[in-house]
Amino acid sequence: MKGANINLNIRSLKPSATLAINERIAELKKQNKEVYSFGLGQSPFHVPKEVVNELIKHAAEKDYLPVQGLLKLRESVAEFHNRHNHLKFSAENILIGPGSKELIFLTQLVYYGEIIFPAPSWVSYHPQAKIIGNNVHFIPTNYKGRWLLSAEDLEAFCSAENDPDKPRILILNYPSNPVGSTYSIRELEELVVVLKKYNIIVISDEIYGLLHHKGEHHSIATLYPKKTIISSGISKWCGAGGWRLGTFAFPKNLDWLLNGMKVAASETFTSVSAPIQYAAVKAFEGSPDIDLYLVHSQRILSVIGNWCYQLLKERQIRIIKPEGGFYIFPSFRNYSAKLKRKGIVTCKELAETILMETGVACLPGEDFGLDPKLLVLRMAYVNFNGENAINQSMKMNLDPLPDSFVKDQSPLIYQGMLKLINWIDRL
Amino acid sequence: MKGANINLNIRSLKPSATLAINERIAELKKQNKEVYSFGLGQSPFHVPKEVVNELIKHAAEKDYLPVQGLLKLRESVAEFHNRHNHLKFSAENILIGPGSKELIFLTQLVYYGEIIFPAPSWVSYHPQAKIIGNNVHFIPTNYKGRWLLSAEDLEAFCSAENDPDKPRILILNYPSNPVGSTYSIRELEELVVVLKKYNIIVISDEIYGLLHHKGEHHSIATLYPKKTIISSGISKWCGAGGWRLGTFAFPKNLDWLLNGMKVAASETFTSVSAPIQYAAVKAFEGSPDIDLYLVHSQRILSVIGNWCYQLLKERQIRIIKPEGGFYIFPSFRNYSAKLKRKGIVTCKELAETILMETGVACLPGEDFGLDPKLLVLRMAYVNFNGENAINQSMKMNLDPLPDSFVKDQSPLIYQGMLKLINWIDRL
Repeated sequence: MKGANINLNIRSLKPSATLAINERIAELKKQNKEVYSFGLGQSPFHVPKEVVNELIKHAAEKDYLPVQGLLKLRESVAEFHNRHNHLKFSAENILIGPGSKELIFLTQLVYYGEIIFPAPSWVSYHPQAKIIGNNVHFIPTNYKGRWLLSAEDLEAFCSAENDPDKPRILILNYPSNPVGSTYSIRELEELVVVLKKYNIIVISDEIYGLLHHKGEHHSIATLYPKKTIISSGISKWCGAGGWRLGTFAFPKNLDWLLNGMKVAASETFTSVSAPIQYAAVKAFEGSPDIDLYLVHSQRILSVIGNWCYQLLKERQIRIIKPEGGFYIFPSFRNYSAKLKRKGIVTCKELAETILMETGVACLPGEDFGLDPKLLVLRMAYVNFNGENAINQSMKMNLDPLPDSFVKDQSPLIYQGMLKLINWIDRL
Repeated sequence: MKGANINLNIRSLKPSATLAINERIAELKKQNKEVYSFGLGQSPFHVPKEVVNELIKHAAEKDYLPVQGLLKLRESVAEFHNRHNHLKFSAENILIGPGSKELIFLTQLVYYGEIIFPAPSWVSYHPQAKIIGNNVHFIPTNYKGRWLLSAEDLEAFCSAENDPDKPRILILNYPSNPVGSTYSIRELEELVVVLKKYNIIVISDEIYGLLHHKGEHHSIATLYPKKTIISSGISKWCGAGGWRLGTFAFPKNLDWLLNGMKVAASETFTSVSAPIQYAAVKAFEGSPDIDLYLVHSQRILSVIGNWCYQLLKERQIRIIKPEGGFYIFPSFRNYSAKLKRKGIVTCKELAETILMETGVACLPGEDFGLDPKLLVLRMAYVNFNGENAINQSMKMNLDPLPDSFVKDQSPLIYQGMLKLINWIDRL
């Protein structure tokens, strides 16, 4: 386009994958097609009432807050990590940003070194690197390894680079978007051996930590405290994605990175919206009601995720049992011959055909850095009214919820999955 | 520092100047020193009650909003510009960001070309360019030209570059931070002749537009609609700096830039906080009460600004009569011989000495891109309770407010100015 002077790093980028699927869904709905969305990964749950009440109470707060964040909020975030992970953060170790996505972007902007992450990874790590023009590397993982990074793969990658002193950041996200799997303590311990050997900084993206389905999330920071930055926020476990507040917790000896990010923050977003910061204090402080909200969130996600998993597993779809968060990541490779006869060779073609023939909207694994021929889809099981589901769950005892809960409380997920299963059966 | 791998573009940056002065003030206050702050440029006024009420009403909004911004908000921003400047924007021309600072940063990131701005300019344009590694140029202005960019200077700059087709963005801020002056229609017309000749895109930073003291702000977009992006927000005229919401209004034929920025936004801040966006709809829609709030804001700033101006003018300080916003920009050059005897040669030394000897805190002109030897300071006259001042102003008739209003309603500004004048008199 004449006169369109766009930074080449950005010209090559498409709008984010989750955005694209939303627009596609909107189009189809306009044509009166029935769509079952498994696309955007937004929490289905409401923001806890106590937290909303704090926003109401602080609605008139209008002052610019400190770049690093409201002191009281940083105290409560530090205390939150110390409570959940037995760590020793204090307010000065915490940085508040308008979403952890923005904070990860600023890290990529401020840090000088190599950024590595496993493939598959969350959709935005790589485009962020592209925008900045960073040197990044994917380390492939595989289905047998639950799509998680193994110590062997990390060691192989680092030793192949033949530059043991290279400055590196590894971004690790668990419970995982897009997979739904997470690391055991043993697996984290094995990783830490390699991380120590190569002196690698870790950004531990634990935004789904409190949505571990059994409440058993374990942070790598406990094993590798001096080099781990914990990334978190209120978008997932607290239902407040649209509020835009993320947090980074830095170990003391990464102060230089925190300080660099503060400078960049002061010239970009300045500080996070004041009323939102005041409200978030309550979210991180927690309360008996918020604990209850979490317990019910976890068991609801567990029953829905496992029901979806079972249905697909029974049909020889390669899929990892969900452990946390709200995603499954099925691979259709066992159907590749049948799919090829339908002209489907890539995961994009797979996602598009399923959408057109069943109305089920998923994201192709390609968007997460996977080989398109692996025929993987990411499905978010969040298309239900979380507030109603929690109210219903509260009326039931605390044993695992029955499978009937899925049909009753998440009818669109139920119907969408049946459509998908039916489509598979007819292949 | 060993292991501190910081992008060299950021390593060289200091924390922003306004931030630094705040920390300095906090230090002195800890030592029980009396400080009269003329540092940070934060609106002294409250957020209008109707707008706060909308935030309360929408506190539970938790969904991620579209990257470009809530449709209803974009409609009201378009309508706002059309109403105030007789333009023809519609919702699709508007982009909402977490502060116009962030949007200006994204423009610098996305655009490929030269960024130019007058010196003095707002503190963040240049560090943003440094962070990104952009090719930027200051065009010097001078006291006689009211520190505004003249058509002649712009022509001289462009013709000296000897590259008439070079892609360029000019960032123009008026009413001006740091000066308080603004462009007449005639001056804008003259600029437009040169802008057209070189086909330059303008970012017209009109964040202080509604704080023109006579309510007579005129946008360059009316004269140069096809190439002007209007930058605005709710931080200044609406008192909501801490809420973090800025707006860009693009002409249709700069869609390529808007689209590039949307891609960058989707990989960084994602979208602006949902409750804040819902509340801002009311701010841009306006109401009779908001109009009244504005009229009183304008006349209060006018009486205080002019009182400060007069005091300094009477002492042969070189200073421009305030026309809008809440800054004055005095030059102490007429005192340079006397100051030299005190060992003061630069504006930083001047600011530091005044702070230590009188408690009056100002920013040095150097932070705005000026030669330190010009001995210029930026003073923000906002250190008063705006809500009380408006309530008081409402009880008085609509003639200009009397000078006694300054002493009654902004005692710290009154006392600080007297201390400063006394200090000058004793030079």
